[in-house]
Parts: sequence; C-alpha cells; structure tokens
Amino acid sequence: MEQGPEDTAAPEAVAEKPIGALLSPGVEPVRMGSRPGIRPLLPQASGPVKAAVATGLAVNGNGTSQFMAGLTTNCTSPLQTSVMSVKAVKRKFIRDRGDKPFTKRLRFSVRQRESAYRYRDIVVRKQDGFTHILLSTKSSENNSLNPEVMKELQSALSMADADDSKLVLLSAVGSVFCCGLDFLYFIRRLPDDRKRESARMAEAIRNFVNTFIQFKKPIVVAVNGPAIGLGASILPLCDVVWANEKAWFQTPYTTFGQSPDGCSTVMFPKIMGGASANEMLLRGRKLTAQEACDKGLVSQVFWPGTFSQEVMLRIKELASCNPVVLEESKALVRFNMRLELEQANERECEVLKKIWGSAQGMDSMLKYVKRKIDEF
Amino acid sequence: MEQGPEDTAAPEAVAEKPIGALLSPGVEPVRMGSRPGIRPLLPQASGPVKAAVATGLAVNGNGTSQFMAGLTTNCTSPLQTSVMSVKAVKRKFIRDRGDKPFTKRLRFSVRQRESAYRYRDIVVRKQDGFTHILLSTKSSENNSLNPEVMKELQSALSMADADDSKLVLLSAVGSVFCCGLDFLYFIRRLPDDRKRESARMAEAIRNFVNTFIQFKKPIVVAVNGPAIGLGASILPLCDVVWANEKAWFQTPYTTFGQSPDGCSTVMFPKIMGGASANEMLLRGRKLTAQEACDKGLVSQVFWPGTFSQEVMLRIKELASCNPVVLEESKALVRFNMRLELEQANERECEVLKKIWGSAQGMDSMLKYVKRKIDEF
Amino acid sequence: MEQGPEDTAAPEAVAEKPIGALLSPGVEPVRMGSRPGIRPLLPQASGPVKAAVATGLAVNGNGTSQFMAGLTTNCTSPLQTSVMSVKAVKRKFIRDRGDKPFTKRLRFSVRQRESAYRYRDIVVRKQDGFTHILLSTKSSENNSLNPEVMKELQSALSMADADDSKLVLLSAVGSVFCCGLDFLYFIRRLPDDRKRESARMAEAIRNFVNTFIQFKKPIVVAVNGPAIGLGASILPLCDVVWANEKAWFQTPYTTFGQSPDGCSTVMFPKIMGGASANEMLLRGRKLTAQEACDKGLVSQVFWPGTFSQEVMLRIKELASCNPVVLEESKALVRFNMRLELEQANERECEVLKKIWGSAQGMDSMLKYVKRKIDEF
Repeated sequence: MEQGPEDTAAPEAVAEKPIGALLSPGVEPVRMGSRPGIRPLLPQASGPVKAAVATGLAVNGNGTSQFMAGLTTNCTSPLQTSVMSVKAVKRKFIRDRGDKPFTKRLRFSVRQRESAYRYRDIVVRKQDGFTHILLSTKSSENNSLNPEVMKELQSALSMADADDSKLVLLSAVGSVFCCGLDFLYFIRRLPDDRKRESARMAEAIRNFVNTFIQFKKPIVVAVNGPAIGLGASILPLCDVVWANEKAWFQTPYTTFGQSPDGCSTVMFPKIMGGASANEMLLRGRKLTAQEACDKGLVSQVFWPGTFSQEVMLRIKELASCNPVVLEESKALVRFNMRLELEQANERECEVLKKIWGSAQGMDSMLKYVKRKIDEF
Repeated sequence: MEQGPEDTAAPEAVAEKPIGALLSPGVEPVRMGSRPGIRPLLPQASGPVKAAVATGLAVNGNGTSQFMAGLTTNCTSPLQTSVMSVKAVKRKFIRDRGDKPFTKRLRFSVRQRESAYRYRDIVVRKQDGFTHILLSTKSSENNSLNPEVMKELQSALSMADADDSKLVLLSAVGSVFCCGLDFLYFIRRLPDDRKRESARMAEAIRNFVNTFIQFKKPIVVAVNGPAIGLGASILPLCDVVWANEKAWFQTPYTTFGQSPDGCSTVMFPKIMGGASANEMLLRGRKLTAQEACDKGLVSQVFWPGTFSQEVMLRIKELASCNPVVLEESKALVRFNMRLELEQANERECEVLKKIWGSAQGMDSMLKYVKRKIDEF
Repeated sequence: MEQGPEDTAAPEAVAEKPIGALLSPGVEPVRMGSRPGIRPLLPQASGPVKAAVATGLAVNGNGTSQFMAGLTTNCTSPLQTSVMSVKAVKRKFIRDRGDKPFTKRLRFSVRQRESAYRYRDIVVRKQDGFTHILLSTKSSENNSLNPEVMKELQSALSMADADDSKLVLLSAVGSVFCCGLDFLYFIRRLPDDRKRESARMAEAIRNFVNTFIQFKKPIVVAVNGPAIGLGASILPLCDVVWANEKAWFQTPYTTFGQSPDGCSTVMFPKIMGGASANEMLLRGRKLTAQEACDKGLVSQVFWPGTFSQEVMLRIKELASCNPVVLEESKALVRFNMRLELEQANERECEVLKKIWGSAQGMDSMLKYVKRKIDEF
C-alpha cells in the first residue's frame, strides 16, 4: 500500500495517460510528485538519484513493448524479469532495498563490453557496419535533452562520423524516445541569470541541431515511444525514421510559451504542407505513429512486438551497402538544404533566446511547468 | 415564433448546418432572405443577365449538387422559381410576404452589436482574442470574389492586423465557402475595354493575394462548403485549414480557359507534389474534404453536425496562446516564402492579364459561362 | 484464325490488359510476336542474345511476379528454358513457326499509318491534340533504357514540342513500364574502357533527363506496369502520373551499388518528405501503385481492366483545353524548378560517373547482375 500515494499522485495518469505515467509507470509519479526536497540538490549522481535510476531501469523492464529494452538492454538482470505490472510496487521495494549495487555493476560491465567509450546519458554500441546510439538519460527524465545530454550525443555522432561506421542508428532505452528540452534543468538555472541561461540554452540547441544538419552518414531513427518537442523536430534532419506503432509525436511549443526549434519551421511544412505543420507547431496537435507516417514524418511503422527485429533486419541490410554510395546519396539529397537549415536553426534559436529572455516568455514556461506539477 | 420565418427562409441552414448558420446565428437567415430592396442598387443586374442569375439562385436552393450552376449567376427573376422545389417556393413566399422589415432590422442590429465596422460583402466579428471574418457577399453570388469583395476582405484583415487580435478566423455564411472569381462581374465589364478590365482584375487579384502573403498573424480558415478557384488556392496562404466534411475543393482553371492564381502554382506542388497539383491545376480534379486532408491542403476535417463547435473550441484554445509566440512562430514558418510567393503572385497575374486580354482567352471564358447558362 | 497465334503470343495482353494492348491494339500483338527477321539488323543481337530475348519475353509472359528475374537477364543459358512455363515454350514455337511474315507486314502498315516517323524502340502515335509515345524497346529488355532508347525518346519529344500537339502521353507496350538503365548494355561495353563508357552513359542520362526538365508542354504518364530506377525517378519530371493498379515503383540504387538519378534526390524528398524518399533511394523500398499515390508520386490509380479507357478519356479532355493555358500553367508550376533540377541532374550524373569509374562501384554492379543471373 505504500505504492498508493504514488499512484494517486498522478491522477492524469489515469485520465490523460501522459507519457510518463504510461511509459514509465512508477517513475513519473515519483518524479513529478514527491521530490521537491531532492530537486534543489539535483547535481546528478549523488545518492537520491540512484533510486531514480534504478526505478528508471525497472520502468524499462515494465515497458509495454518490452522490446526496446531488449533492443538496447542496458539492464539485463534476471531480477528484472520478475519486475512486472501490479507487483511493480513490490518490486520497487525490492529494488530500492537490494539490487542497486548489482544492477550498477551489471550496467557497467555491459557498457564496457559494448563500447570503448562510456557516456552517462547515452549508450553507444559499435556494431557491424553501424553505430547504435541509444538515449538513456540519467541527468534528465524521460530522455529529455539538456546541454549535457546533447553534448554526449554530439560526441557520439562525431565519433561515428570519424570511424568506419557506414551509418548511425539512433534510438532510446525505455519506452520513451525523447521528451524534448529538459525544462526542469533550464528552470532550475534561470533564477541565476535569465539572459545568460537563455543564451546558453539556445546556444546548446543550435550546436546540437547543427550536428544533425551537418552529419554526413545516414542516420536512421527507431522511434520506440513518444517523441516530443525537440525530440520530434530533429526527426526530419535524420534520413530514415521507423516508428513503433505505440510511438506518438507532438510539438506543443505554444502550450509552454515557446517557439519551434530543430528546423521544424522549415522541415515540417516541406514534409506535410503548411496546414498540417501549423496544426503541430501552433496547436501542438499530437500525431499517432500511423498519422505521422501518412504525413511523411515517419517512413514506416512496425508493430511493437516485432519492432526491434524489423529495425535490426533493415539496418543490417543497409549496413551491407557500399558506404560510398550511401554517403554520396545522402549528400545528393541534402545538397541544397544545408545552408537553408543552418539559417533556419539560427533564426529559431534567436527567437527562443528572445522569448526566454523576456519576462512574458519565461512566465508562460513557468506557468506551464507549475500547472504540470500542480496536477499532482 | 418570430424565429419561424427565418428558419424556413434558409432551408439549407437547417439541413446542412453550415458554419455560418451556427457561427453567426441570426445573420445568415436574414441574408438569405429577401434583398430586393438592395438589388436595384447594383448596376449590373440589367436585362439578359437576370435570367442567368435567377437560375443560379434557384439552383442554390436546390442544393450543392447543382451548385456550379450558381457559380456565375447574379440575379433573381421570377422565372427561376420554376426550378425551385415546391417547398422552397413556398418558403420564399412566406419570406417575401412577411419578414422583410423585420429581418432587415435584425440584420443591422446584429451587425452593429458585433462590430464597429460595417461591410456589405463580409461580416466581421471582433471576438475575445481573435477577429472572425465571414464571407457573405451581396455584390456577388456564392461568395465569389470581385474587386469590391476583395477590398472589403483586405480592409478587415488590415484592421485585424492593427488591433489586439491574436489571430483571424476566416469562414463564410451559407453553405458555400467561396466560389473564386466573380466571372459575371468581370464579363459584364469586358465589352467596355477588354485590356483595361483585364488589367484591373489582375491588379485586384494581385493585391488581394499579397494581403494574405504578407499578413503577420495566424489565419485559420474554417471551410464550411465548396472552395473553388481562388477560394481554394488562397488556402495554402493561410496557416491552419479546417474543413467541414461536406466541403470540396476544385481549381478548374483550364475549364474556363484561365491559368492558376493565388500562388497555387507554387504552393500546391509544395504541399501535395506535382502530380496531384497538376491534376487539380490542369485537369480541375475535385477533391473531397477528406482527400484534401490526405493531400495536406486541409489540416483536419470535422463532421458537419459539430463543425462550428469544433472550430470554436480550437480557435479559443489558440487565442489563449502568447501572441508573441504565435506571431514569431508564423514568421519563422513563412520566413523563406514571402519573396517567392510575391513573385509567383506577380507571374500568375501577368499571365492572367495576358490570357484575359487575348481574344482566345476571353472566348474560352465566355464559352464556359454560356455553357453553364445553357445547361438550364 | 489468323488472330490465334498473335493472341497466344502475348498471353499477358489478354490476362492483364496492359495499356499497350488496349491503347494501340494491333501494335502490341505484332510486337510481342516474332521479330527474328528484324533482329539480325540490331548490332547487339548476335547469336546468343536471341535466346535471351525470347527468354525475357517468356518471363514476362509468366507474370510480373517473376519479372525482376528478367530485369537483367542476358544470360542465355539453356537452363533458362526451365524457367519458362511449358505453355509459354509451346507458344513460342507457334510464334517462331508461323506468323512472322504476316505480323511483319501488319506492323509496318500500322506504323506508317500512325506516324510519319519510324523508331526501333518506341512507338509514336500522333493523335488528335496530343502525341502518344510508347516505350517498346527492341534494343533492350523490359523497356530498359540504353543510350539508343533514350535518344529515340528525346527525338520523339522534341518532335512533339515542335508540332501542334498540346501535350504528350507517355506509356509503354507490354506489362512493364520501364526498368531503368539497361545494365547489360552498359556492362557489355565496360571491358573496353571503363572510364570512357561510364562518362558516355552518364552523359546520355544527363541529356535524357534534361529533355524532361526542359520540355514545355505537359507530359502525362500512364504507368502500365513496374517502373524501376530511372523509369521511376523521371516520373516527377512529368506533370500528371496515372498508374495501373498493378504497377509498382522501386529505385533500388544502393542494391546495385549506384547512386540515384533522374533528379530523384531533389524531387522525391519534395514530394513525399525525406523519410519516405530515403526509404526508396537508400533502401530500395518498393511501393505499390496505391502507396505511390498516397505519397504523391502518382496522381491517380485505375483498375487494370479499365486503365486504358480511363487514361484515354482524361487525356482527350485535357487535349481539348486551350493550349496556351496548358503551356502557361506548366511554365508557372515549373518556373522556379528548372535551374535547380538541371543542377541536381548535373550533380547526380557526376557522382554516377565517379562511382562507375571506380573499381568498387563497378564491382557492386557486376556482383548484382551476377547474383541475378545465378538465381536461375
């Protein structure tokens, strides 16, 4: 019954089925609910965080398709198999009590086996012919992006650009793909100096997005779950986008008083026409995976049960191609777009900086986050 | 029971629940009722044209299927009653007999209550956070566009641009959205001086289309019924397009010997690809609301029964957003397009002027209008 | 009973009602019949090739599902006969034995009646208001394109540009639309001088594609069957694309170690968005006619049984339009694209030349062709 408070702490989990509650049941309530005491501390590796991480892992185990977990497994303890459904509460206890040291150890050994490079917020697996990068953030919730996560991704991409990988597969651990910007990270820092922090965040986004614009090898994205905000807007900067049928796509910028990012103001209209693009960018319309596919944001949708197999099958096929042909083909497709996209990125980040730097813009965002928190 | 005559006066308002009837109840029935007092003022309702016009009205009464007939008609001869269904005739009689003074009075009071500005061909309602502009033409049939209607729309838009409206909702009274250019208006003037009138019409279109290209706040269109020619081609210049499931979309330019307008030669291929765009622009293919949505011309389709509610719900949501964010977002999306669209508009109007000014081009148009009239 | 041999000689003409059979009745059966008398004239049709040609035809006769098999087959091993159905072999015998002189005579009279110009690889029919060009290659299999076929097409297009045709209808005889580049032609010449032949082939493609980019009158394509590689990538350079429901579309460039051509690197992303475009260009995803229509590559899909009637009905409608309006409309739609497409074509051909000229690129192609051959 100790679970009770947590469950009730997330009423919208029932009503609205928000991403956190469904995709990572157990984490979100904790996250959104009772951690005001933890928040202020949150430099991201000390004591209390561990619990969150453990929970996060368990959550992945809980994940609906369970599949991405397998795809990317990061956490493969036999304990986890027992980690399921109603017993989640119980499990959480067991975890909190006992398996921390174990999973921690396991995690590291898995990582070391897979790659020579260690990251905190992503997992990088060098595979035959391609590099697999998985979002699995510890410094943010739900794979949301803060400057530190972005820097790791950029570093992994630049590594893949330089080595013999023919392409990059980008996906995520858990049942969420990417929740866009890490607003909590941002807001926590704002009181210090709003102008400076806004500029810093805008700068981080600009560099992050430019990395995608300028990347020369094909990037295939396997969207395992919700892709929100910047997590959705970077998709058109990648080359092929496969989605789990459970994934959904939303860019609710105006809802939290922000303007669009990730070159979505250029790419969304190009892909789906202005009318549909503005429904997403101005009204925050949510698209199912199938709708996103019909509109051209996604290349193909696969059933959750076989998502990882389908992805792996196709990625291996692609990775068997002549790398020169792959790179030249991408260069041809992207030829005219690079400058246009860099400029769009620049403009978008300038507007973001302006809005974040203004009292009104900041208010909108705080109100949004407060509303979210008050919902508990 | 005072409501009675009004309801019967607009049979399609009941049957089809057009957006106008719901969005501006009270206005539509009045408008659809008797306007003989106004008619005589129109310079153009002279002799032979009357018959054609009369047919048009009767046809409208008969429903949208025969709707194209009304495309170019402009007047009201008693002959036409023979075409009307018995019921409609009866209703018309009741109207003509009784509700004239009443509805006229009502009309004006409604208008004055809603807006400080009075227009003849549109209704403008300043609402909380947005301006609602409804096509409801008296100087043309079926909300078709002549220079006078266009000027009123431009004036209303420039008003909305200057005031505190966050956005504009554009729709129409009745069961037709907009039938494109008012060919009868045009043809009536041509005998005077073909070259001059062609140039004048092309100039009117250029300015009208540029108003849409340059408008800074989001424009949402609620397409309540058929959108034809220029009435369809301006849709991509707006930002969000919602359609009643009964609406349909057609740009039959070549049928009446005209070249495309409204930047459709640029925007249609961008939105739906060249193959589909040319089916519309060269072959005049008619799209249902759902097809238009699938191809990206329309953002969403709603059922006729709840169309106005759905529109109003969403528009209020949008109107609650930070206006700076809305305007900046639109500016970002439109950034690269403005010059391209202005040039396309310029080119299209030049070609129109050339075609209208030529004997062959004029012949095609006259033949088309004559064919339409001869069909009765 | 004279008809008999002809009918059986082209079984798919009966079963599938390909556009060729219906659109140019009398031509198709003759063509499909025996042409050994003509063959010897072809420089490349020496001894062993004959068998290959026959096999190729037989394969087609077996149905489209086995069609890829015929894509590249050259290979003329007696083994291949085992692939043919017994019936097909029988039919071939009947053909070879009897109908030669008759069909030859018929063929010539049909051609002379239809057009003043004779081609080897295409059929050109000057019709009321439009020119109908049909691919029906003798110097290549399955309507694939080698420099000679391309030159004929270019010549026919330039003829249609100069005469009073209002538009061009492009289709193909048989059950295949166009299989893209004629790799066998290419490979046969490579041993001579790889660099020179690569440059020559790239040059041929550049000119061929530029002809489409620069053509001023509308081109309507009726895709009767599979459109592969360059046969699919030129479609967006045409204006309206109608497809038989049996047609399919594939650009498996990377599979045979080639980069994309026909401006597909520019037009595919414009039409269907980058994600779907890359699925086709990088992964060679095959689209059904309906999928191609949903993605905007095709304007409309018609049932096989009525395909030719639907096409003819619509083409005649189009051909009744004012030609000035048609040409001006196309000019408006294409205005901004010409330079961009010419540059894209230039880039694509440069890359092709580079890849073909390299040992690795050539190896990929040879491996691919060998694999195809080994499959038998």
